[in-house]
Amino acid sequence: MNGPNRQILLDTRPKGRLTRRHFSVASGDIPEPGPDEVLCRTILLSVDPANRAWMEGVSYRAQIAEGQVMAGYGVCEVLTDGNERVAAGALVLGEPGWQEYAALPVRSLRRIERRSALTHHLSVLGPTGLTAYFGLLEVGRPQSGETVVVSAAAGATGSVAGQIAKIKGARVVGIAGSDEKVQLLRQRLGFDAAVSHRSPTLEEDLRAACPDGVDVYFDNVGGQVLETILPLMNVHGRVVCCGAVSQYEKGPVAQTTVTKGVPGLLIMQRLRMEGILLLDFVKRFRVAESELAGWLQDGRLVALEDVCDGLETAPDALIGLLRGDNVGKRMVRVGPDPEPG
Amino acid sequence: MNGPNRQILLDTRPKGRLTRRHFSVASGDIPEPGPDEVLCRTILLSVDPANRAWMEGVSYRAQIAEGQVMAGYGVCEVLTDGNERVAAGALVLGEPGWQEYAALPVRSLRRIERRSALTHHLSVLGPTGLTAYFGLLEVGRPQSGETVVVSAAAGATGSVAGQIAKIKGARVVGIAGSDEKVQLLRQRLGFDAAVSHRSPTLEEDLRAACPDGVDVYFDNVGGQVLETILPLMNVHGRVVCCGAVSQYEKGPVAQTTVTKGVPGLLIMQRLRMEGILLLDFVKRFRVAESELAGWLQDGRLVALEDVCDGLETAPDALIGLLRGDNVGKRMVRVGPDPEPG
Repeated sequence: MNGPNRQILLDTRPKGRLTRRHFSVASGDIPEPGPDEVLCRTILLSVDPANRAWMEGVSYRAQIAEGQVMAGYGVCEVLTDGNERVAAGALVLGEPGWQEYAALPVRSLRRIERRSALTHHLSVLGPTGLTAYFGLLEVGRPQSGETVVVSAAAGATGSVAGQIAKIKGARVVGIAGSDEKVQLLRQRLGFDAAVSHRSPTLEEDLRAACPDGVDVYFDNVGGQVLETILPLMNVHGRVVCCGAVSQYEKGPVAQTTVTKGVPGLLIMQRLRMEGILLLDFVKRFRVAESELAGWLQDGRLVALEDVCDGLETAPDALIGLLRGDNVGKRMVRVGPDPEPG
Repeated sequence: MNGPNRQILLDTRPKGRLTRRHFSVASGDIPEPGPDEVLCRTILLSVDPANRAWMEGVSYRAQIAEGQVMAGYGVCEVLTDGNERVAAGALVLGEPGWQEYAALPVRSLRRIERRSALTHHLSVLGPTGLTAYFGLLEVGRPQSGETVVVSAAAGATGSVAGQIAKIKGARVVGIAGSDEKVQLLRQRLGFDAAVSHRSPTLEEDLRAACPDGVDVYFDNVGGQVLETILPLMNVHGRVVCCGAVSQYEKGPVAQTTVTKGVPGLLIMQRLRMEGILLLDFVKRFRVAESELAGWLQDGRLVALEDVCDGLETAPDALIGLLRGDNVGKRMVRVGPDPEPG
């Protein structure tokens, strides 16, 4: 194959740390859409910790196969007419994978009603923003005055979860991986406090930042940070299990993650831990998007975005994300916005 | 002290396995009730895994001190007049500890409205029955046709939880520690299936017993059994964290318990794990007791009871309970029922 469709393949599945060597570059043909499919051009690709989790085995979706185009979702422009829902020129959220062109089933596409910058439809108004919204409000249910702790708080989901908790009147404490991020959480996003998970005194730092204990913990990382926070939880506290990025390079996450204090502390403190997956809330996306877009417009919600330029940057973008390099929603710009500005 | 009030003291706190050597026998005076106290005579003492957990450190109650009367609740007869709520002759649920006589604060006592055998007020209608009721119905929320798995299913709480799940139309699978108990669950309590946690093929046994997966797991044991069941849970399954008896002899349970698959499986399957403690439902005790008493009367609920005779049997009763010797609610008869039969 030496066609015009640039692609990045998952060459071999990583055992442990993901590196560039696990990927390869290819050039395929521009595919011919089948019945009930349309041809799509990739504009922006979303880069998420989940990309790494998908390599590990069957999760809520099938494992990514070796030698295939790396899986991923993003914003696309539809190039051929589909049905009454999707015609040429439409902007959609879909799963083209890491390539410039893909033929995608019409029913797998979600039409984007452009509200503001196209990147916002992958960040605050996109799947990670919606995950923060439903995870925090449906599972975490913070009350005004309660203390909410968010890990990976400068990340795509955490930054939105923490800001929504502020909007709901909670005291919000962020955990992030560098002094720069800690500062950003306090100064730019208005968190009440922020601590670094690399601090040797993380437990004491958290105790100091949460003098009234923790009512809601929005967990994006699992592992040691989760274990450190569980003993700080107040009676009837809630843990939103949204991700376990600290574990994704250690083997199949569903099998290997281990948390000390479970179920002991859950019983003592009558805690609730609950997993969240965005798929369960499809019917309520429009309402949530409207509310998020309103907050964005009012300036109550800041969109933290981290855009890498060019399809070829995607492997490094993901590798760096897993190290915590990103600030906010990381995405890769693959092609131009048809209506920029 | 060499008075007429026989007592059993917790002589030394166990490190690891509890033995008789951790207890001693004493004879104290019959205490003089202070203001707002009444003198109580112990009739039945409840023996619970929680007794062991209380020795391990601060839990939802203070740690039991060495050299003091061993803590425990039970059914007492009030011997002196208190206030309008409790007068001499009343039967109450209270916390006399392991002794024949205790002066107890009136406000700590719960008046028993005698509905049937006095032992029922410690078993099906007592704290363990109520824990099963609220834990299953409030946290587990089984729907008709769903599969409910209960561990320590021949125990005080498990036997009631499983039977309530049957009443609610669920398919009920019990886990117990011997072939005799497994048979009893199937034959006497009407469970749909039962397996032994000592089986070397526990995971396969459970898979076979739960062909449609597990929707609710009522967990009394924690540890390996919890880890075995988590991967069998269906999407949106619920784990009622009621106890962790497999861990109580391994050190402070809140700190040391470790469960593989948390939070990984919670995220993948959107599971909810939630701790339950009866104290949170005090206001609804009467309603629950009435419903349980109705089922008992109708014969839909069987009271499994395991009564040891004499205060001096209490240490062995608890030691044996932690080995799983009991069938149903274990209690110790300390003195006669004032209105037997």
